[in-house]
Order: sequence, then structure tokens, then C-alpha cells
Amino acid sequence: MATGEFDLIARIRARAGTRDDIVLGIGDDAALLAPPPGRHLAVTADTLNEGVHFPRRTAPADIGWKALAVNLSDLAAMGAEPAWCTLSLSLPQSDTAWMDAFLDGFLALAGEHGIALVGGDTTRGPLSLSVTAMGFVDAGSALRRDGAQAGDDVWVTGTLGDAAGALVLLDREPAHPLRRRLDRPTPRVHAGRALAALASACVDVSDGLLADLGHICARSDVGARIDIPSLPASEALMDAFDDVARPALQAAGGDDYELCFTADASHRERIASLASRLDLRVTRIGRITAGSGVVAVDAAGAVWQPPRTGYDHFG
Amino acid sequence: MATGEFDLIARIRARAGTRDDIVLGIGDDAALLAPPPGRHLAVTADTLNEGVHFPRRTAPADIGWKALAVNLSDLAAMGAEPAWCTLSLSLPQSDTAWMDAFLDGFLALAGEHGIALVGGDTTRGPLSLSVTAMGFVDAGSALRRDGAQAGDDVWVTGTLGDAAGALVLLDREPAHPLRRRLDRPTPRVHAGRALAALASACVDVSDGLLADLGHICARSDVGARIDIPSLPASEALMDAFDDVARPALQAAGGDDYELCFTADASHRERIASLASRLDLRVTRIGRITAGSGVVAVDAAGAVWQPPRTGYDHFG
Repeated sequence: MATGEFDLIARIRARAGTRDDIVLGIGDDAALLAPPPGRHLAVTADTLNEGVHFPRRTAPADIGWKALAVNLSDLAAMGAEPAWCTLSLSLPQSDTAWMDAFLDGFLALAGEHGIALVGGDTTRGPLSLSVTAMGFVDAGSALRRDGAQAGDDVWVTGTLGDAAGALVLLDREPAHPLRRRLDRPTPRVHAGRALAALASACVDVSDGLLADLGHICARSDVGARIDIPSLPASEALMDAFDDVARPALQAAGGDDYELCFTADASHRERIASLASRLDLRVTRIGRITAGSGVVAVDAAGAVWQPPRTGYDHFG
Repeated sequence: MATGEFDLIARIRARAGTRDDIVLGIGDDAALLAPPPGRHLAVTADTLNEGVHFPRRTAPADIGWKALAVNLSDLAAMGAEPAWCTLSLSLPQSDTAWMDAFLDGFLALAGEHGIALVGGDTTRGPLSLSVTAMGFVDAGSALRRDGAQAGDDVWVTGTLGDAAGALVLLDREPAHPLRRRLDRPTPRVHAGRALAALASACVDVSDGLLADLGHICARSDVGARIDIPSLPASEALMDAFDDVARPALQAAGGDDYELCFTADASHRERIASLASRLDLRVTRIGRITAGSGVVAVDAAGAVWQPPRTGYDHFG
């Protein structure tokens, strides 16, 4: 059903949640917010474009979920508590049914994490979603990329390669169980906040493990050695891909939105107990080294060569 | 020249300004910022899509300027002091020359207003710019849309209709002097901040005067009566359009990014002196009334009928 821009904005406004720290929400030239005194504000922005960041014909509720999830994942990687977000939405045509379904997905995830939509705009254009997410973190306790030390363990939450596996299977098996990991990634917000006291560095796995861990190494001026056989795989991924095909998906596939973090070896037990408390798989996959760059080794200890080192949008 | 996503981000990072309240800028999963204690945060987000919000073949420096200007204009309309922004940039292909020129325009305006670019992303897609801008305002002193009172004067800064005039002339005279007002709008940041103590309500003129003043009326539960012959026009607009064609551009044309505000009649002298101090034309164009809706009247006092009431992206 076609309708006007102001009708679409009214639909968003009617359903956007609120919080005590929102002085003025959607409906003016800008939102007015009251940041908590003494804490830092973590701010991140990520865009999803149709056909680039999600397949064409993805369900609108899944698009809504993912547009917020990739931004919550960045807040998680900082150890931040989600608070507010803006949404800029470009749509080829006005469509209230699409908008309602999109909001179903976006607001379901927003509600899980107590983040409120406070502004944005709706314009005509090729399907594109730009979200800016804001959260709070105590001064000095954010999980940055630049704190890894030689000797630290390297860890990863959840399983790797599922989203990349779903993309490989997309044409043949569009409804494969792995598809849900591509369409509805789980931002590791609780894990990130709990890790703020334990991890020395953290990044979310959006471009692929080796590429993202490479960002930690570059910012921390260290290297890393990753043990390919230790990389965690889901049952669904193991069923769908053999031992030859799987490592590339796990080490270089993007879009998993797990957290890769480093921590002193003395924290192993505390990390295990945190994982148990959160009911979240957390796997030790390697070690930070002096030097630079990420080296991956196979079961025989030989250097493993990835087919590519992450997703470069202009590569 | 083609290059990768990370090269483009490096170019942005190298040129982004900084501020004392930026704890961590571009280069991590999120920026870390230190908001000033006790002040409110004003947050706004606006997207520009090629062919919708700016003509195809617009110079990249002008696109950069305008992408930030439309967001600064929203902060201005709240009376806020600009502080930080994020930029999500979708580009059909990687092009460092385009990016450098784009940043020339974006950062020139950012420098004028002390706003620092703290994050964002760069992805492949149809040309689109999404900016989220953040600024500060003292608690209780923001210029909202909901404070207009019956009897208040209605004012507007600068001149109206220039951008709409440039669009009319675009094919015939693409380099007409009015074009600069379309490509390089001036966000009225200083005026907005100064008006925070005087105005009862404010909105920026992005969709057209009648439409935007209509937002004030709706939120304030009042009406407005606008005197068409009083609407300020630039020399360039008067040269290019006669008395019959001009009013529609001034009353209903979008993209001027002037401020339309309301104020008690007792503030007329203070507003005039503020205008003089800022060297900015400020014109009284009508009155807030009891009732609802915006009525425009011509020189004879008859109701003037606009050809359209603003720009609806899906209209």
C-alpha cells in the first residue's frame, strides 16, 4: 500500500520505545537526550545495502533485525550498554506492510536490549538502512582494539562460518538452517559487557576472523597465531561442509557478529565461568605473539593459507 | 583510481578533526566520547540520495558540504552547539579523487562549526550519504516545535525560495547564481544558538515554509497566518522569477535550510539587534493564531493557494 513519508514516520513514532533518559523523542528537528553523568558515550554507525549486505528478497523483519544487530554488535565489542539509536531508511517506494514487518524485526531486537529509536529519516532511494547506535561505558573500562599483549590468549564467542556457509548455500538451499545465522545474527551484548573487566582487547567478527583479529594486531602492535582446528563450528555447519571446505568459512567468512577477544592467561577460569553463566560457547583459538600479522596453522602445525582475508566492499 | 574500503577509511581518518571531548575517534568498533555534565545531547540523522536530494553530477565537494549542512541545520533548529558526527557513505565504486573532494566540502563546513567526524562506514552501493549529528544544549533551553503561542510573531532567517529556484533553472542554467544556495546551504547554527533565549518554537525550512511551519502548528496546537508579500527574497531570485512565479518558490520550495521561528512580540527589538550582530537578515512574516493549520494571504488579504505544501518523498 502506497502512502506518504509523514505516514511512514508516524508509524515509526507510534511504535518506538522510550526510556527515562529521553527528554524528547521522534518528532522534532532532533531528539534531546540526557547522558548519564561521568560515563562515556560509545557511538557507532553501520549501513546495510540490499544485494551487498543482505540478499535481495530477504524478509523485511530480518532486514530490520540485522540493521540493528550489526550496530549492537559494535557496541558489544566495546563492552557498552546500548541506549539510543537513529535510523535512516531509504525505500524504493512507500509500503506500510513492508514498514510494519521491518519494524517488527528492528523493535524485537531493540526491546531485548533496551535500546530506543530516537530519530532518523525516511527517504526515497534504493533499499538502504543506516543506523547510528549509542551506548554507555564506564570511563576507562571500554574494550578497545589496542590493548592486546604478547602472550594473551585469543578467544571467540559462539561459532564461526555459519553466515558464510549460508551464503554459499543461498541459491541451492535458501531455507537451510544456517540461513537464520545470516539473517538474524545475535549481537553478543551481554558477553561484551561482562568481558569489559577481563579482556585486554576485543573486536566483532564482521569481516572475517583473520581480518578482524588483524585489526586488533595492527592497533595493539602485536601478532597472533591461530589454531585452525580449534575454531568452533556449529553442528549445522559440520553437516553441510566437510573438513576441507569448512576452515575457510570459519577463518575468513564474514557476518558472524561473534566477539573475538584477547585476555591474559590468568583469566581462563573466570572466562569459562562467565561463559557458563551466559550459556554461551567461548573457545580459546590461539595466542597473541610479539611481531605483527595473523598466522593461522593447521593440525600439522603448517601455515594455513586462507583463500581471502576478509570482505572488502571494494575488493 | 580504484582502491579498497580500508584505504578509503584511512583517508577519512587521516583528515577527521579532533576535540578534547573525544576519548577515542575513528578506528575502533565505536568512538568513545565524553559528554559535558548536565547538558542535554541533541541527536539528528538525515540522508541524502543522489537524484533525490541532490542532482546527478553535483560536485563531490558540494555533496560533502550539503550532507553535513542539512544535519547542522537540524541542530541549529534546536539551538544546539554542534559537537560530533558519524558518516555512512555508500559509493558505486571506490574512487579516492572523489573521496578527497567530498571530504574537502564536508570538512570545510565541519571546521567552521567545530564538529568532529568520529565514526561511520564506507560501503558499496548507490551514492548515498547518511549523517548523524550530535550537539549540546542546556537543559530546558532547547528550541522545540511545541512552544508556539497564539499571538507570537512568526519570523524567518535569510531568504526563501532560492534552492527551489535553482532546481527550476537546473537544466537551462545549471551554473545560475542561485545554484550555490542549492548546493551549499548555510546552516544557521549561530542564529539558532542565539535564539534559544528568545524564540518560543523553531523549525528548519527543509520541506518548504508552509509545510515546516505546519509542523510547529501541529506540535504547538495552534494555527498561523502568513503574509505572502512579506516573504524575503534574494536579488537573484527576484531577477530570475516574476511576482507571479516567485511566491510558490518562497512559500512551498524546499532545501533552503533557513530557520522559521516564533517569538513573543515583546522580543522584536532584541531579535532585530541579534540579526544585526550576526549580519543576518531576519524577517517577520506572520502571526501565530488560535486554531490550527497555516493560512497564507496575499497583498489583498485573500487566501493564497500554494501549488503544493512541501516536499513529500513518497508523494
